[in-house]
Amino acid sequence: MFFQAIKTPGLAHVSYVLGSDGEALVVDPRRDLGVYLDILQAQGLHLRYVLQTHRQEDFIVGMAELAHLTGARTVAFKHPISGYVDVQLGERARLQLGRLSLLALHTPGHTPESMSCAVFLDTHPTLAWGVFTGDALLAGETGRTDLFHPERTYENSALLYDALHSEVLPLGDQALVLPAHGPGSVCASQIADRELTTLGLERHRNPVFVLGRDEFISHKLRERLPRPPYFSRMEGVNLHGGISLARKQRTLPMLSPRELQQTAEVLGLILDTREPEAFAGGHIPGSLNLWMDGLALFSGWMATPEMPLYLVLPENTDVRQAELSLARVGMDRVEGVLAGGFRAWRASGLPIEHHATLTPNELHEQADRFQTLDVRTVSEFEEGHIPNARHAYVGELEEHLGELGLRQDAPVAVTCSAGPRGGLAASILQRNGFQGVANLLGGMTAWKKLDLPVEVGPAPRPSEAQVQEKAQGEEGQLYYE
Amino acid sequence: MFFQAIKTPGLAHVSYVLGSDGEALVVDPRRDLGVYLDILQAQGLHLRYVLQTHRQEDFIVGMAELAHLTGARTVAFKHPISGYVDVQLGERARLQLGRLSLLALHTPGHTPESMSCAVFLDTHPTLAWGVFTGDALLAGETGRTDLFHPERTYENSALLYDALHSEVLPLGDQALVLPAHGPGSVCASQIADRELTTLGLERHRNPVFVLGRDEFISHKLRERLPRPPYFSRMEGVNLHGGISLARKQRTLPMLSPRELQQTAEVLGLILDTREPEAFAGGHIPGSLNLWMDGLALFSGWMATPEMPLYLVLPENTDVRQAELSLARVGMDRVEGVLAGGFRAWRASGLPIEHHATLTPNELHEQADRFQTLDVRTVSEFEEGHIPNARHAYVGELEEHLGELGLRQDAPVAVTCSAGPRGGLAASILQRNGFQGVANLLGGMTAWKKLDLPVEVGPAPRPSEAQVQEKAQGEEGQLYYE
Amino acid sequence: MFFQAIKTPGLAHVSYVLGSDGEALVVDPRRDLGVYLDILQAQGLHLRYVLQTHRQEDFIVGMAELAHLTGARTVAFKHPISGYVDVQLGERARLQLGRLSLLALHTPGHTPESMSCAVFLDTHPTLAWGVFTGDALLAGETGRTDLFHPERTYENSALLYDALHSEVLPLGDQALVLPAHGPGSVCASQIADRELTTLGLERHRNPVFVLGRDEFISHKLRERLPRPPYFSRMEGVNLHGGISLARKQRTLPMLSPRELQQTAEVLGLILDTREPEAFAGGHIPGSLNLWMDGLALFSGWMATPEMPLYLVLPENTDVRQAELSLARVGMDRVEGVLAGGFRAWRASGLPIEHHATLTPNELHEQADRFQTLDVRTVSEFEEGHIPNARHAYVGELEEHLGELGLRQDAPVAVTCSAGPRGGLAASILQRNGFQGVANLLGGMTAWKKLDLPVEVGPAPRPSEAQVQEKAQGEEGQLYYE
Amino acid sequence: MFFQAIKTPGLAHVSYVLGSDGEALVVDPRRDLGVYLDILQAQGLHLRYVLQTHRQEDFIVGMAELAHLTGARTVAFKHPISGYVDVQLGERARLQLGRLSLLALHTPGHTPESMSCAVFLDTHPTLAWGVFTGDALLAGETGRTDLFHPERTYENSALLYDALHSEVLPLGDQALVLPAHGPGSVCASQIADRELTTLGLERHRNPVFVLGRDEFISHKLRERLPRPPYFSRMEGVNLHGGISLARKQRTLPMLSPRELQQTAEVLGLILDTREPEAFAGGHIPGSLNLWMDGLALFSGWMATPEMPLYLVLPENTDVRQAELSLARVGMDRVEGVLAGGFRAWRASGLPIEHHATLTPNELHEQADRFQTLDVRTVSEFEEGHIPNARHAYVGELEEHLGELGLRQDAPVAVTCSAGPRGGLAASILQRNGFQGVANLLGGMTAWKKLDLPVEVGPAPRPSEAQVQEKAQGEEGQLYYE
Repeated sequence: MFFQAIKTPGLAHVSYVLGSDGEALVVDPRRDLGVYLDILQAQGLHLRYVLQTHRQEDFIVGMAELAHLTGARTVAFKHPISGYVDVQLGERARLQLGRLSLLALHTPGHTPESMSCAVFLDTHPTLAWGVFTGDALLAGETGRTDLFHPERTYENSALLYDALHSEVLPLGDQALVLPAHGPGSVCASQIADRELTTLGLERHRNPVFVLGRDEFISHKLRERLPRPPYFSRMEGVNLHGGISLARKQRTLPMLSPRELQQTAEVLGLILDTREPEAFAGGHIPGSLNLWMDGLALFSGWMATPEMPLYLVLPENTDVRQAELSLARVGMDRVEGVLAGGFRAWRASGLPIEHHATLTPNELHEQADRFQTLDVRTVSEFEEGHIPNARHAYVGELEEHLGELGLRQDAPVAVTCSAGPRGGLAASILQRNGFQGVANLLGGMTAWKKLDLPVEVGPAPRPSEAQVQEKAQGEEGQLYYE
Repeated sequence: MFFQAIKTPGLAHVSYVLGSDGEALVVDPRRDLGVYLDILQAQGLHLRYVLQTHRQEDFIVGMAELAHLTGARTVAFKHPISGYVDVQLGERARLQLGRLSLLALHTPGHTPESMSCAVFLDTHPTLAWGVFTGDALLAGETGRTDLFHPERTYENSALLYDALHSEVLPLGDQALVLPAHGPGSVCASQIADRELTTLGLERHRNPVFVLGRDEFISHKLRERLPRPPYFSRMEGVNLHGGISLARKQRTLPMLSPRELQQTAEVLGLILDTREPEAFAGGHIPGSLNLWMDGLALFSGWMATPEMPLYLVLPENTDVRQAELSLARVGMDRVEGVLAGGFRAWRASGLPIEHHATLTPNELHEQADRFQTLDVRTVSEFEEGHIPNARHAYVGELEEHLGELGLRQDAPVAVTCSAGPRGGLAASILQRNGFQGVANLLGGMTAWKKLDLPVEVGPAPRPSEAQVQEKAQGEEGQLYYE
Repeated sequence: MFFQAIKTPGLAHVSYVLGSDGEALVVDPRRDLGVYLDILQAQGLHLRYVLQTHRQEDFIVGMAELAHLTGARTVAFKHPISGYVDVQLGERARLQLGRLSLLALHTPGHTPESMSCAVFLDTHPTLAWGVFTGDALLAGETGRTDLFHPERTYENSALLYDALHSEVLPLGDQALVLPAHGPGSVCASQIADRELTTLGLERHRNPVFVLGRDEFISHKLRERLPRPPYFSRMEGVNLHGGISLARKQRTLPMLSPRELQQTAEVLGLILDTREPEAFAGGHIPGSLNLWMDGLALFSGWMATPEMPLYLVLPENTDVRQAELSLARVGMDRVEGVLAGGFRAWRASGLPIEHHATLTPNELHEQADRFQTLDVRTVSEFEEGHIPNARHAYVGELEEHLGELGLRQDAPVAVTCSAGPRGGLAASILQRNGFQGVANLLGGMTAWKKLDLPVEVGPAPRPSEAQVQEKAQGEEGQLYYE
Repeated sequence: MFFQAIKTPGLAHVSYVLGSDGEALVVDPRRDLGVYLDILQAQGLHLRYVLQTHRQEDFIVGMAELAHLTGARTVAFKHPISGYVDVQLGERARLQLGRLSLLALHTPGHTPESMSCAVFLDTHPTLAWGVFTGDALLAGETGRTDLFHPERTYENSALLYDALHSEVLPLGDQALVLPAHGPGSVCASQIADRELTTLGLERHRNPVFVLGRDEFISHKLRERLPRPPYFSRMEGVNLHGGISLARKQRTLPMLSPRELQQTAEVLGLILDTREPEAFAGGHIPGSLNLWMDGLALFSGWMATPEMPLYLVLPENTDVRQAELSLARVGMDRVEGVLAGGFRAWRASGLPIEHHATLTPNELHEQADRFQTLDVRTVSEFEEGHIPNARHAYVGELEEHLGELGLRQDAPVAVTCSAGPRGGLAASILQRNGFQGVANLLGGMTAWKKLDLPVEVGPAPRPSEAQVQEKAQGEEGQLYYE
């Protein structure tokens, strides 16, 4: 038996390779397939199946290409929106993999076609070794139920509760739970930081098993998660098993500062992945500060696949990793990388912008001088923020900038939880003409550690509801196109 | 939470790094510590404890050195034979690691001081996440109970049964079982080939939980496992927390064929790690054929720490890996490596020996011509062997050669299960003057696949018992020194 | 300034990356381009030119694809057979690269369009730093002059002599000589084993500068080099700048022994890259023994691009490297790799063949029993062979097998210089029904070291001339198609 | 023949491995020996000699340990200050290495015992293939002649001129020149950025061959190079063949922000290797900003081997590389690394300092507001600086701070050539209580590209001479101790 979990940083995504007697199964592969191909070759495994637990919405899957490259068959749950796959498994359908037996379980709620797939060891077909749960069941959490028709969150939550209780829980405490996402994912609210978990552990700790049905539904209805605009694109793309990376043969041009300036300034967007302090100290005018681990997710908020992107990377960064982070969410038009990094720009004599940084104590002492802007999620904000702070989620900041009542010519202190989203927000403000931007070093994490005053409760700003309605309008048709 | 299992090939050993809130624990580290240090550094973890589940007998541990290098404290069960450690945990003693809580459980039977260590997640101190079981409980198996005072195998088995039932089983089906060895280890008989397991899975499948107490004890009494002579050395060494590798600063000299011949021939032992076919096709006279994965274990049978060793390695072999495999069982006197491999020897004009290979059909057709020698374990032999085959376990072959009644001047066909041990046995026979040695290609695995005739039952040779008594004589005092 | 030489093992090919002020030139790239792209990215260099010194005949170039991937322009000498390139440089034409100046020099003789390209440092345009010489001038050697119209070897040699004296020598003793091949290449006879060389060193040591014009021409006329049949294919392919590797997206299937047997046996050719001793000890019936370093060159003799190939690889071999070695000479139809290597085959119960090995002393003592076959080149054979040995160059063995007068049912001892070509020849003989094949361990190298009797002079076999005429017939038209 | 150059970043040091017929020579090894041992093992080479061209002053050599680990013999020129070596070669002494012949040439001037070592190919003992020149002859430059008894710079320069003309030049234009340092080294003034060079190239371009004797001596007398205080330590240490790294077994503790604060604040020095913009945006109070490539050299100015050092490293930095950079100049007391990098500190709520950054245009427009401080070398400063800038070389800044007439309570703009040394200077000023420090982004490089006003000529500050006299006092006795 062979088993390996493959984590994708920045997306908190987990995919799996399972092998038995020379045959292999890959579950929920990401778009860049090198890691799977290497494992298969090193282990001498012949890939039989590529399994999709559900149509992922936060990244482009590698289903179709992996199947194409290896001759494997694609597998998903039998459902109208599963997209084209070779094998559609109905409820309780079985697959054989070497000496292992796989069992399909319908676990809708996060998405309608979500499948969990239980794995049984050969000699005990009645005793589950583990279960691939996709985004249905996660460590200490369940997948969000507001994605597919937000207005049906209630029904989705009920569906999820019932499926997990009737299909998954009976597999027994001993079964390993193997979900598609770990802590930090936007596919769920509060995934626990727990390496490896079992149904028994979840039975005692997961809200879906600890709470009653109504309680659980209410709990899900209270969740208020940002909905990145790129989700609907991903779903569309994944309907066809993802987009191949193979055609991306061109290497990234290394551009001199002047070349970058000339090509990027007209139409392109410059993403600067350095730490917020470095960005504050100096950056290319108009560039966005988007840290490496946030590159996948937040490029999904800030850019579109059609947009030419240019990268400013810190020292020692593997350009290929940055390119892959973007490609994983479909941002394929990376047109160039600043050769020599910001060092080269700094020495080129080309224009440089900078903005201020601020320690919590400095902000506290000069609170009068600053308009304060908090760019965390609604939930984070409501749990405690700087008194009088305004709020807009960083992903929606540019859109709501006009409604916040901020003066461009007066100092603005930006805060997030620890700095990176604040760096992004600061760069958005500078792009929009704000003069006195300052990033709060250490954000609310440091602020709270210093016991500085905190206010609890909702922000006085346009309700999340409007955003969701809008998103829903865009999404609604996608599933049945 | 951070968790990683580290496997040591050749020894089927598993060690672990567990981390929480910046603090780390390493369980049962091997002698070469690079892998742990790299993980700790990459994860930014501060090592607090190095835990020994029991005094390992099949490899040298890295306890003392790892503690020395990092400032961590060594931990073991409170028992007279635990050796010097910083912290001796009594039954049900607790340790805190970041937000995790660790609980010591006494699980003797494999060795008297064996400890299992349960891990509890912070918020549920009553709900075990997993349990480090050392060699007490393994996937589908329990550790052998004949090592410590072989004549007390009955009592040891009873102890083990009782401890696992009273201490470990109550942790619950949901708990991950994290043992110190995987399939292929000589520390147990039939470890299941199962990546990751839980107490629930073991409860349904492990003999110790499936069988009744008496049944289990009888089962253990029937086990007949070879007892490598180096085990007692390891136990002695591990009493002091292992031997540092740090002093081994010298790099391995790359020797020309002539240099190797001159230095190795007088006193040294040449280990040739190529595949048995390559060895058969040509090798240095007097060399032993010991495949890479068998290097650790079988050097423990064939050599002693005082013996100067010389290596003939296949192409593309990392010399350092070979050296480490030997160092892990205390064979530190590797004095040189043949530069250019056997290619260089072949071209040097120096003496070469070769021996024949034989397919199963060829042996079957010419059965009359050959004396057949089976060098697998007693159990493997008794489950089915070539009619009229003689038997001696490869590890004890040289010792028992005189008693086997083989003629040196007539052809001998050697077989094991698939080839490697046969290669070793063939090289032992050649060293002892046998003229017509032939290695059966594919061994009994191929033989059986071809449906050639098989005989079941005991071999007509000096009983294992004698060997065990002898070993016991050597071992018996060690534990109390 | 940036400079790096990239060696391709197995082909003894050398390509170069030269950089200055952010701009780069790649000289004679091979087909697999990863190494160049990685260097360009790591160094932040923008590729301006891909330069071809001449149409290479021993491997597929990566010119066209590298230019395509990077936007660089392809450059070659202005000549009808240069193929399509973006820039054709006439005699003494100059290119600028950052602060470096490049000068085109026509150096025909190896091929008609061969160019050397001198590199001048910015401030001293009259002082050459070095010269890329392709196959015109090599360390201690010149390129063979019999490839392009073998019957014009005299004229080609004269052309080469004159060009090197008039164009290259005047660059001065201080200039580095940067050739396209190193020792072991089939593009020249006796390339010196000298890392880095200069024109001054060559002036004192290279036959082309040490000998007089007539002497040099006679020297070249005496060269008798095998002419691999794949050379003409390479030339045709390279006319168009090579074939992209990009479309080769499929990964190599790992096949079980039975799968390999079923698919390979019908139409395919199995290449076994293990050492000759391992092959002798056991191999798949019908497979060819083709060692890793010989994979590129000898697959060019043994296979065609249309032939489905299957690989048996030694432990620890990077499958991708083997695949690349074949791809570099256009063997793109690798259809599978034996999963688990020969170990898996051995244990499968499927048919196995083996053949004998023989030490020089054994052969000498039993000379009467063996027909001896020497498979080295004509030149190697004539310099000294075993008395009464027959001769056929390994590359042409199968073709000439009928003419050698060997009996299939009597033992044949095969020898080469040290073993690998002997292993290939032994496998060819076995494929052709020979029963008693034995490979001489250490070949003539060991034979001579043991002072065993040697005969000098030509072999009593069909003259090389016939082969060359034939080859010429096939080749002759290619250049002008 | 095997040849490989090994570059050490940060020190611009080059060492070499030369091999022939299985034997190897290493020239001027650095302290961390892994790279040599790996090459020797991969190439199957037996190290015979470790050669020291001269007693290096800018790093700790690995001579003694490499010899110890491999059994090789240490070799240097026969001279009282060569230190203990196994073989002292007199003028024109020869060594054999495989088929190569080595010839010792005395080339004093940089140091009294400097040796060049010519390499001859076997068959032409009169024709030099190349020459290891240490710091005597470099690409386009010669080693500085002011190190050994600065007051004898005239005599040293004359010695160097004569030796290079009489000993090295006659080797011929064809010989490769293989020096111990490349561009960026502090061992010489203006080393050319030229990969690979030959005596012929140097004959036409190197001042020592282009200028007349008197002209050359005047040229050397005009050189004004900073003399790092750690040079004399290195010389003392290298007298004994360097200090082993083997004893450095402890791994670097990863410290939490609070642990770092507690341990570092009392006695230690915190080195922050992030880019200057990142440091400006936020840093630990009292830390020094010392970029990775400057870590070796400038830790030699800022720290002593006795000082406990703590590191703040950028993302993706290999801690081991930072540790090695420091170890190469003897800074062995690295006591900890900030776990999680500055991100962790930022979120900890612990005190943070920041300082301003400034673009050239901003400084130009607000010139009145700023005191400007230029921290480049005297030569760089005199070639062109910002009008009214004060000057102190960054290495000597703290020492001369009192003499510069800078006001602590008024803004100071710091500039170097492109930023890093400015970052270091800014951190020194902050440590010394300056309030309004700002680092000029892009330094004089950007300033000049923008055509902002520049002043040429000497700085009005304490002469370099004083410093040199002082240094000399410290150094003078070292050589004869």
